[in-house]
Amino acid sequence: MKTIQLSHGGGGEETNDLISDLFYKHFSNEILLKAEDAAILHINETIAFTTDSFTVSPIFFKGGDIGKLAIAGTVNDLAMMGAKPLYLSSSFIIEEGFSFKELERIVITMKNELAKSGAKIVCGDTKVVPKGSLDKIFINTAGIGALKTDGISAHNIQEGDAIIVSRDFGRHGATILAAREGIELDSDLESDCETLWPAVEALINSGIKVNALRDATRGGLAAVLNEWALSSNVCIEVEEEKLPVCDEVQGICEMLGFEAYDFANEGTFILSVSKDDVEKVLDVLKEFDFSSNATYIGSVTNEKPKKVILHSAWGSRRYLELPKGELLPRIC
Amino acid sequence: MKTIQLSHGGGGEETNDLISDLFYKHFSNEILLKAEDAAILHINETIAFTTDSFTVSPIFFKGGDIGKLAIAGTVNDLAMMGAKPLYLSSSFIIEEGFSFKELERIVITMKNELAKSGAKIVCGDTKVVPKGSLDKIFINTAGIGALKTDGISAHNIQEGDAIIVSRDFGRHGATILAAREGIELDSDLESDCETLWPAVEALINSGIKVNALRDATRGGLAAVLNEWALSSNVCIEVEEEKLPVCDEVQGICEMLGFEAYDFANEGTFILSVSKDDVEKVLDVLKEFDFSSNATYIGSVTNEKPKKVILHSAWGSRRYLELPKGELLPRIC
Repeated sequence: MKTIQLSHGGGGEETNDLISDLFYKHFSNEILLKAEDAAILHINETIAFTTDSFTVSPIFFKGGDIGKLAIAGTVNDLAMMGAKPLYLSSSFIIEEGFSFKELERIVITMKNELAKSGAKIVCGDTKVVPKGSLDKIFINTAGIGALKTDGISAHNIQEGDAIIVSRDFGRHGATILAAREGIELDSDLESDCETLWPAVEALINSGIKVNALRDATRGGLAAVLNEWALSSNVCIEVEEEKLPVCDEVQGICEMLGFEAYDFANEGTFILSVSKDDVEKVLDVLKEFDFSSNATYIGSVTNEKPKKVILHSAWGSRRYLELPKGELLPRIC
Repeated sequence: MKTIQLSHGGGGEETNDLISDLFYKHFSNEILLKAEDAAILHINETIAFTTDSFTVSPIFFKGGDIGKLAIAGTVNDLAMMGAKPLYLSSSFIIEEGFSFKELERIVITMKNELAKSGAKIVCGDTKVVPKGSLDKIFINTAGIGALKTDGISAHNIQEGDAIIVSRDFGRHGATILAAREGIELDSDLESDCETLWPAVEALINSGIKVNALRDATRGGLAAVLNEWALSSNVCIEVEEEKLPVCDEVQGICEMLGFEAYDFANEGTFILSVSKDDVEKVLDVLKEFDFSSNATYIGSVTNEKPKKVILHSAWGSRRYLELPKGELLPRIC
């Protein structure tokens, strides 16, 4: 079996071979192939800039792998600001002895995921570390996008807004947890990992004013709503029975004592828009497989305190708190 | 001892606390503090974009630490394209149980190194992985700079150019190797790790036309010169006796069987400029401590083959080859 050796990270002949045989081959584009110390980019628009490192375990899971995550995650951070993803960096840290074939599989997934937004990898870095310094592979991506609309911000949520979630949530967290706990599922539960830019682009093109947009990654729905309540100094009131969670996710949560709204998602986003625009938003989102069941879950109000309130079907209310404690390490 | 826990990477309350108490505190700037999914940047110039991951071991070494490397490394990649470093991302992957005090020491080093170029950290990411998934801490930085001059490129080296190295080389590699092998030195040998933008800016402002510029990191002087010969299809002839290597580095090389020109540097760069400009270049570089002993080491010619030739003082010649094999893992 061909494996990655320390020499592939040494900066000499073998590093050049790896870069040519794998990264240039699959990520090929004119800017990347210039192979300078930095990529030169002509954008001339206001840009968005973001980064994420990916350490997920297992690296291959139902619905994706660490490569899909590494592209979708960074592309989505740009999309959530209303920026069209244009250019990404990719930096691999690989454990000595890692399978070349698995690395190529990851790189091909990345290439396929890039095609969904049209973004290109234009610069990168490869480090190989001795056995035991790292568990298998970590990937960092940073991304640059061109801002296509103004004013999307966690600070911009308005009293009277509607809160919409793009799909049922908790799938990524539940999938990774099930894989790690060795839970065999009689179902096709898989991660929601997905590039969200096409839906965001359609929302922008429709002319709908989106006040806030955020993908519910680590910390899940609970973290996003709490951050929004704090940043915009508003109360967010959510109807618990409207929260969309599939049976498999609910089952895993009950079995292991988690809440689906704390679980990480990798292709699920939350919107705050004027109540008048709810139908228009749902119409746009239903055109995409990954958001065809978008759901209106709650409202932004002037209630005190400025926190997130869950209303039950029976009329009781409680705070949805910011997640606390360990949750799930290496979820993304 | 306060340590980093898995909960600091969970995306909930403890993550927010760590970000506020450490990263926002030391990297504080208006863009970063907006805490959106991506930083919004108004540049409106052609930009350079680059990334590097840092995995050095030991994380603290003579002349620097992993944080200094993470800033200088990415800032230098921008500088080597003639781009003024403006905005950086920083992404930390930390092993559970890592000392908070050491993390803060690294973050403060980063802050101090940023001040040398004026670049700002505007976005970031923090992951904490379970004990054993990673050795201590890895840092990725990506950077955006504004291009201040055109035409600096490995493809742009001209016959008749002079090759200049900014200082004696091999210090970073020798320092890390000595630390790892437990070699006690009766000297003050330390890494050359340094932000090079001030010297590059001075070269640009002087009006000197620089054809190629590259910091000699992994693979050292040998890798840069070989890449240049290949990219520009030229022969680079170097006079061995002019190569500046300090006695300590030479001693470590002889003791352990390495060549200083294969060693990584983190604050040493190579220039290709017209022979007519050599004196002007040396005059500019001598104004900076880190390049006050810049040396004219060789020439670009039309000889065949298009490789790097080392001329000895006794008239013999041999090829300086691209480094091959393991070299030194986790050097940067």
